[in-house]
Amino acid sequence: MVKFGGIESGGTKTVVAVGDASGVDVEERFPTGDDPAAAMQRVADFLHAHGPLDAVGFGSFGPCDPNPRSRTYGHVTSTPKPGWANTDVVGMLRSRGIAAPLTFDTDVNAAALGEWRYGAGTGSEALLYLTIGTGIGGGAIFGGRVLHGAVHPEMGHQRIPGAPAEGVCPYHGNCWEGVGAGPGIAAREGRPAQDIPPDDDAWRRLAELVAMGLSNLVMALSPDLIVLGGGVGIQPHLHDLVRPRLAEIIAGYVPVPALVPPGLGNQAGIRGAFVLAEQALD
Amino acid sequence: MVKFGGIESGGTKTVVAVGDASGVDVEERFPTGDDPAAAMQRVADFLHAHGPLDAVGFGSFGPCDPNPRSRTYGHVTSTPKPGWANTDVVGMLRSRGIAAPLTFDTDVNAAALGEWRYGAGTGSEALLYLTIGTGIGGGAIFGGRVLHGAVHPEMGHQRIPGAPAEGVCPYHGNCWEGVGAGPGIAAREGRPAQDIPPDDDAWRRLAELVAMGLSNLVMALSPDLIVLGGGVGIQPHLHDLVRPRLAEIIAGYVPVPALVPPGLGNQAGIRGAFVLAEQALD
Repeated sequence: MVKFGGIESGGTKTVVAVGDASGVDVEERFPTGDDPAAAMQRVADFLHAHGPLDAVGFGSFGPCDPNPRSRTYGHVTSTPKPGWANTDVVGMLRSRGIAAPLTFDTDVNAAALGEWRYGAGTGSEALLYLTIGTGIGGGAIFGGRVLHGAVHPEMGHQRIPGAPAEGVCPYHGNCWEGVGAGPGIAAREGRPAQDIPPDDDAWRRLAELVAMGLSNLVMALSPDLIVLGGGVGIQPHLHDLVRPRLAEIIAGYVPVPALVPPGLGNQAGIRGAFVLAEQALD
Repeated sequence: MVKFGGIESGGTKTVVAVGDASGVDVEERFPTGDDPAAAMQRVADFLHAHGPLDAVGFGSFGPCDPNPRSRTYGHVTSTPKPGWANTDVVGMLRSRGIAAPLTFDTDVNAAALGEWRYGAGTGSEALLYLTIGTGIGGGAIFGGRVLHGAVHPEMGHQRIPGAPAEGVCPYHGNCWEGVGAGPGIAAREGRPAQDIPPDDDAWRRLAELVAMGLSNLVMALSPDLIVLGGGVGIQPHLHDLVRPRLAEIIAGYVPVPALVPPGLGNQAGIRGAFVLAEQALD
């Protein structure tokens, strides 16, 4: 039986786990913090303690470089997160003795893979996975393969009509993420999303933004299914508002994909990291 | 030596040709018209006259169905073009004796493939091909494979901020195509794009719309190269205005892909149809 290591390094917290295709055997969660060397040390210590491992999958917050032919492969690149810009996180694991075959990708691509293989996206030929939480991130899986392009998509940074002029993205102000993710919602509505009752009109305002961005991704990517998750995105009252509005915007021009919540909850990323590990063995 | 048939069926004109990887040997161009049976008869007559053929590639205006596993494979589907909605164009060729292996795709995907193989996109790992003419259409080629998704992208039908309220798309009003393609430009500026001098401010207004839509596609698809063509899109003064504005909008968050004109001129579609024919042989 093969044994996989999985790493989900998010902007806020890191998960490191050991397990296999059937699930997680043991895991540890800790704040990602501002010191990548310390975080990678903790990851390496955990993996050594629970090895030996056949392969490792690593899903990282972005922007990062998952292209094995690139000079900066395995680096977190132009992130605004303090301490992490231009950091060779895979190199840090290698220098700490993690020698098993390893696949590095974005955290959202890992979660998309997890949902495609084990969650709500099973059977989809063209899956769009979108997470709305402290940011907006998207991953697309076509025929079981992650869409990378030259680097990786940054779907949260598209611009949409109807976005309020004020947004909190440090790069783009009122891009989709700048107005549609947690911090943008809190700035606009004067309270965090989790404190807004389901029947408050703030959810309708958010649904309009979410549906507009999703319709653009439907036009760009032609998904057959949309899995919408994340702390904000998973809310059922948001789904109920987005579905009809998305259909209205598309206006019958192309088929409207089904919109469903994730099937794996907060396990999507780490289960997807195991799928990445499996791909490293191929 | 293999001999290919190629069909480029656009909303306005149809091109049918016979040739091979080195180029077109013989071709015929005629108005697509409102009668698909008559158009497919003319295509079949031409191909029979210049056969026998080893394979055929067919690039069609859309929306259409290029998914071989679908019930409506080879159909033009929800087009507003009179006479053509829900028409089994591949079936019309089959019933007229065109029996060679055939690949059916969108006209814009065919042109994208042509540019990737023989034109300005040679060597690109993640090519975005965009044409702006009577409509806006986009195709993406990743590692030499066309991105289809569930059906095919309809990149011209995204919504962008800053679009004038008035647009001419019969489905979406002021979507990207509704304001950025020829008919939308003519409605806004009071004259067709080809009558607008290169130094007129109308081009700056258009460049803003083009750059905004392209930046969204960069975020969704992560291309390493953008080939921008079409009767409107190919204009050098438009390229000169779009390039810096695209970089401004992206704001350093991800690499800005190079923006180049097509290398094949009006041959991209038909050369791409030959690439589709070659794929039908594989």
